[in-house]
Amino acid sequence: MSAFAATTEDPTTVEQEAFVAEVADELTSFLDEKHTLLGRISPDTLVLVDAIRSLVTGGKRMRALLAYWGWRGAGGRAGAREIILAGAALELFQAAALIHDDIIDRSDTRRGGPSVHRQFSTLHAERNWALNEERFGHAAAILTGDLCLSFSEEVFASIGAGAASPARSVFNLMRAEVMAGQYLDILEEVSGPSKPHGTAVARASAIIRFKSAKYSSEHPLVLGGALAGGSTELLAGYSAFALPLGEAFQLRDDVLGVFGDPAQTGKPAGDDLREGKRTVLVGLTIDGANEADRRFVDSHLGRQDLGEDQIAKLCAIMVDSQALARTEEMISGLSSTAFAALAALPVAADVRKALSALGRSAVSRTS
Amino acid sequence: MSAFAATTEDPTTVEQEAFVAEVADELTSFLDEKHTLLGRISPDTLVLVDAIRSLVTGGKRMRALLAYWGWRGAGGRAGAREIILAGAALELFQAAALIHDDIIDRSDTRRGGPSVHRQFSTLHAERNWALNEERFGHAAAILTGDLCLSFSEEVFASIGAGAASPARSVFNLMRAEVMAGQYLDILEEVSGPSKPHGTAVARASAIIRFKSAKYSSEHPLVLGGALAGGSTELLAGYSAFALPLGEAFQLRDDVLGVFGDPAQTGKPAGDDLREGKRTVLVGLTIDGANEADRRFVDSHLGRQDLGEDQIAKLCAIMVDSQALARTEEMISGLSSTAFAALAALPVAADVRKALSALGRSAVSRTS
Repeated sequence: MSAFAATTEDPTTVEQEAFVAEVADELTSFLDEKHTLLGRISPDTLVLVDAIRSLVTGGKRMRALLAYWGWRGAGGRAGAREIILAGAALELFQAAALIHDDIIDRSDTRRGGPSVHRQFSTLHAERNWALNEERFGHAAAILTGDLCLSFSEEVFASIGAGAASPARSVFNLMRAEVMAGQYLDILEEVSGPSKPHGTAVARASAIIRFKSAKYSSEHPLVLGGALAGGSTELLAGYSAFALPLGEAFQLRDDVLGVFGDPAQTGKPAGDDLREGKRTVLVGLTIDGANEADRRFVDSHLGRQDLGEDQIAKLCAIMVDSQALARTEEMISGLSSTAFAALAALPVAADVRKALSALGRSAVSRTS
Repeated sequence: MSAFAATTEDPTTVEQEAFVAEVADELTSFLDEKHTLLGRISPDTLVLVDAIRSLVTGGKRMRALLAYWGWRGAGGRAGAREIILAGAALELFQAAALIHDDIIDRSDTRRGGPSVHRQFSTLHAERNWALNEERFGHAAAILTGDLCLSFSEEVFASIGAGAASPARSVFNLMRAEVMAGQYLDILEEVSGPSKPHGTAVARASAIIRFKSAKYSSEHPLVLGGALAGGSTELLAGYSAFALPLGEAFQLRDDVLGVFGDPAQTGKPAGDDLREGKRTVLVGLTIDGANEADRRFVDSHLGRQDLGEDQIAKLCAIMVDSQALARTEEMISGLSSTAFAALAALPVAADVRKALSALGRSAVSRTS
């Protein structure tokens, strides 16, 4: 799913596609090795590797690509082994995060297929095993995510970046921030309703910064740059571009989570509403809705049994309260900030072009 | 909780206690740093670091001590920074494993206090937050465990062991094996009853090897030795001692899980039976019990609602079937094998003495 699908002869595209293929090859050979290792422990454990493999096979590889262009922009050599390994480590980390996220969010689907905990509960049901299938599914998915998290780190360590290197620092910071941000996210789901309405947008903005924008955008780009020995100024420029871009990306994600086409997003309509995510979109809704609508939102968000009518009403409130329009305005504003920072970056033309294409696809995507 | 409490002037004891104190200091300063980092994200996230801190404050530090004497036996210098960091990394890894284990096993207590997911569900209840307190507890504990797993790896990476070094290989293998072993453990809980009775002991033995003996005993000792550049022969000797020792340790754990004194183990009586753990003890029970008793075991193991009478009957079946006696015999046999291998190890007298004391306390402990 290249952002450059229309112009395949473009050298930037060719280089990017070569990188994506090398990351895929690296993941394949790494997981083949782990398949052999786990097979020796017991063939029963191979399902764990298979679940990880199917997750890292798909996806947009946005984090790996940002790392790549961060690396190239800082003077790193095309096709170098370090950045391929960094890309593979980021993809494995993302897979681990998705596995645990889906347990936490009780999401039954991921990219149109069953989520990992659902794969395991289905296995339990099919084999007619004892005790509870849901508990088994959750337990197995917790372990699969842990294994994947270890794999991510193992691949990152194999780069050989020094213990005190800037790239290792970014990798460490990224992990701590995303986990803390995810905690703030689940905390907001349960504590948001009892906090002042007026600060909901500010709280949601802080959450997307740590849970999403830094993790999915800023840190990967800066990590690639740091690995290539980029200067402090260059890395600061990367942040000035990628942080607002990542915030815009997450706001787009939140809009798609409610208003997206399930056929394109791979997630059932209303999933985010049933889950009770307290997004900026929700914050703006609470901010802009009348008292009756606000009460409706507070009392329905996060209910697992939301029906189609209730989902339609929640969507209507988001439109009527101007929350959707205001979110789109925020996306535009953040995008402008990001692209202005990109224009000021001291990088080669092909790097700027690649980052621009990634940025555009991140904020205007439909899936 | 030194294994040498009676002879505190002994130089080996003094050295060991100094190491334990240095590991504790390292953990304190590392977690202080993370406390500052998370505090900057949001004070709301500090509970995650606090939960990790309280877990790594207690415990027997058996893995760190095995690593230490493995290091010393291979010629590593007393008090060296590398082995202190390795010890801290092992303690953090164990804390991460405990946090996720307690979710998987639905254990409400850990070392006499509430388990991490229970701490978070209690926080939810006390604050009168929205939605479900149990779901919040599990979600927050999944994230806390993930954070702790990352911390473990961050500390290990700070040792600066090369990407292809033997110590790094042991650390990677240890993580993959314990996660695969834990999966086999939960798989056996659900699929064990539908598998042939005659192979239950063999299956349970394989599980304790990967889930426990290699992880808790063999790998820490070998890791310490590898970090000090120990020879292949020495490391093989370490395995010959620590693998049977670890198996004996786990068999002791299984016995304590059913017959231990709750006041000493910190776990309520019957917890392991309610959880449905398919231990070697259970395998031997199924092997040795009459048909009626076997049916009783299969239909009651893993039931959350087990009452005192049912627990007492399960215990009686374990005694009558000779399963308890046979487990104690296995512990003796494994201990003999382990101590014979220890006697043959080419290490200094103080190292052998320290490993012997650790080994004895592992297999004859009451908590």
